[in-house]
Amino acid sequence: MKASKTTILTGIKPTGHPHVGNYAGMIKPALQLIEGNKGGRNHLFIANYHALNTMDRASELRQYTYEIAACFLALGLDLETTSFYRQSDVPEIFELTAVLASVTPKGLMNRAHAYKAKVEENLSKSNADRDDGVNMGLYTYPILMAADILLFDADVVPVGKDQVQHVEFARDIAGYFNRKFDTQFFKQPAHRVQADLEALPGVDGRKMSKSYGNTIPLFGDMSTARKLIKRIVTDSKPPAEPKDASSLSLYQIYRALADEDEAEDLKRRFEAGGLGYGEAKTILADKFEVLFEKPAKRYKDYLSDKGELERIMVTASRRARGQARCKIEAMRTLIGA
Amino acid sequence: MKASKTTILTGIKPTGHPHVGNYAGMIKPALQLIEGNKGGRNHLFIANYHALNTMDRASELRQYTYEIAACFLALGLDLETTSFYRQSDVPEIFELTAVLASVTPKGLMNRAHAYKAKVEENLSKSNADRDDGVNMGLYTYPILMAADILLFDADVVPVGKDQVQHVEFARDIAGYFNRKFDTQFFKQPAHRVQADLEALPGVDGRKMSKSYGNTIPLFGDMSTARKLIKRIVTDSKPPAEPKDASSLSLYQIYRALADEDEAEDLKRRFEAGGLGYGEAKTILADKFEVLFEKPAKRYKDYLSDKGELERIMVTASRRARGQARCKIEAMRTLIGA
Repeated sequence: MKASKTTILTGIKPTGHPHVGNYAGMIKPALQLIEGNKGGRNHLFIANYHALNTMDRASELRQYTYEIAACFLALGLDLETTSFYRQSDVPEIFELTAVLASVTPKGLMNRAHAYKAKVEENLSKSNADRDDGVNMGLYTYPILMAADILLFDADVVPVGKDQVQHVEFARDIAGYFNRKFDTQFFKQPAHRVQADLEALPGVDGRKMSKSYGNTIPLFGDMSTARKLIKRIVTDSKPPAEPKDASSLSLYQIYRALADEDEAEDLKRRFEAGGLGYGEAKTILADKFEVLFEKPAKRYKDYLSDKGELERIMVTASRRARGQARCKIEAMRTLIGA
Repeated sequence: MKASKTTILTGIKPTGHPHVGNYAGMIKPALQLIEGNKGGRNHLFIANYHALNTMDRASELRQYTYEIAACFLALGLDLETTSFYRQSDVPEIFELTAVLASVTPKGLMNRAHAYKAKVEENLSKSNADRDDGVNMGLYTYPILMAADILLFDADVVPVGKDQVQHVEFARDIAGYFNRKFDTQFFKQPAHRVQADLEALPGVDGRKMSKSYGNTIPLFGDMSTARKLIKRIVTDSKPPAEPKDASSLSLYQIYRALADEDEAEDLKRRFEAGGLGYGEAKTILADKFEVLFEKPAKRYKDYLSDKGELERIMVTASRRARGQARCKIEAMRTLIGA
């Protein structure tokens, strides 16, 4: 038996302009995983139908989808080693969802964290309707996510801590199908928890989030980024005073961008005393520029020609689509469709 | 504005060999509706993914699907005026299902009759798990059915009384989508309740049903059908005695096959006295033979070459598929996918 290749699969919801928080929490880890998976297969997809549950405006969904696409392309995603696609470009995912629904007990969905949180919220407000505000997209989300994963025989799905359950559900659902049809057709994926960097602070010290308006956009112009970085909140310790690096937003953001040695170095300088916030902000801004100045140009180029970007995306999706068709045809044979 | 054409849409679940009960309850009414919809559009589809919720055996699902296909073809379904397809040959239905889920409140699904019946059943058994034995295919069935209907801008969906709610739900779901995206994109369908002939009696007088083993297969050989008809239960009234036709299984089955004048004529003869059960059975058997002897030959021919039948089905589905793609692309534009 030859050593099997590992398939890594990651999805991203297009719900806003890419910022440093997204980079730290998802974009950089995804690119690192892909980089490290030599000889394996990688799937990176834009979960535009997952985003439908929370987004209402077509123009926004379309724009954010193009921005995620432009973001990964600008950062040099290698389309040779990675299948890159929008969920909607591989509609076989939805057919699989319909089939998986028929083998999934409703009880499993009742245990989903996101759904339970909504129910708790209603109960805590003494709302007689436990399901108030729950749409079926939210409720069936884990089945769609299982289809995303199982369609491509993914071995590993990197997730944040709060997403572990989705991969467990995908494993369960693969098991239900395999038992019902007496087969090993769907591979049961493993999750890999990413160091939880999602709580990266924004310029005001609260979690970096679109809704707080405290983000540093990845691909704005460099002078704007530099101004935002200058605005990162600090205390009033003078340069000479030693500082606890890990408690500083400034340091946390730097660590998310720099490599380990660089981060360690800045940490030592903070702790030794003598490094002022102003200088540290310049170091961070310089680092930001090294990382994103060129990608920002490419990003703008991609977005300036949506027709060409569309062509690139459709072309890039072909490999995943072919693989999906192959799997779906085999599944149809298995279930009698 | 020119008069718009009416689109009629009907689905059939492939769950057994076609018998006289199916003919009376669904096949004949569907063919009559199509016949009567001159100049309109007709969609007749085999709901093979709906059947997944209740069927486990791939070989059975495949066989029953071919049998339904062969049945309609043998009975002379006109593929010029009717789009005839398997659900799985138009996977756009499943993409639409995913999108419709995102606009459908969970509360709507909680009110679905089939789901509520399952919950009642669990509660009546003092089962602490209300959702025991409910799979997500059953629970989300109304969304898939809404997609079946809305994808093709159906005006009219003929249904049995127990299915009216599904069409109402499809109308609701069309409304949710249209409001969310501020559009009139999905047409809101009307239901048309078919005279409920599903309770046609079998040869033993109970409802004709595969599970009772009391059916008269549509396309068996004629001598078998004649034997089964001879076996239809009757009382022991002598030929001379007048009989209440409408209470007789024999008459009910005849009425389902014959045209109105013929049925009226047999009724009068029963009521006048002088018509014995033996003679009436011969009349029924003769009628059966007139209707099904030639179709039974064609049916066997279709099923004897599955490759050719498959080719016919795939070809027949092309029109629906093209229409579906067109609608889905327009929908994608509307939602920003």
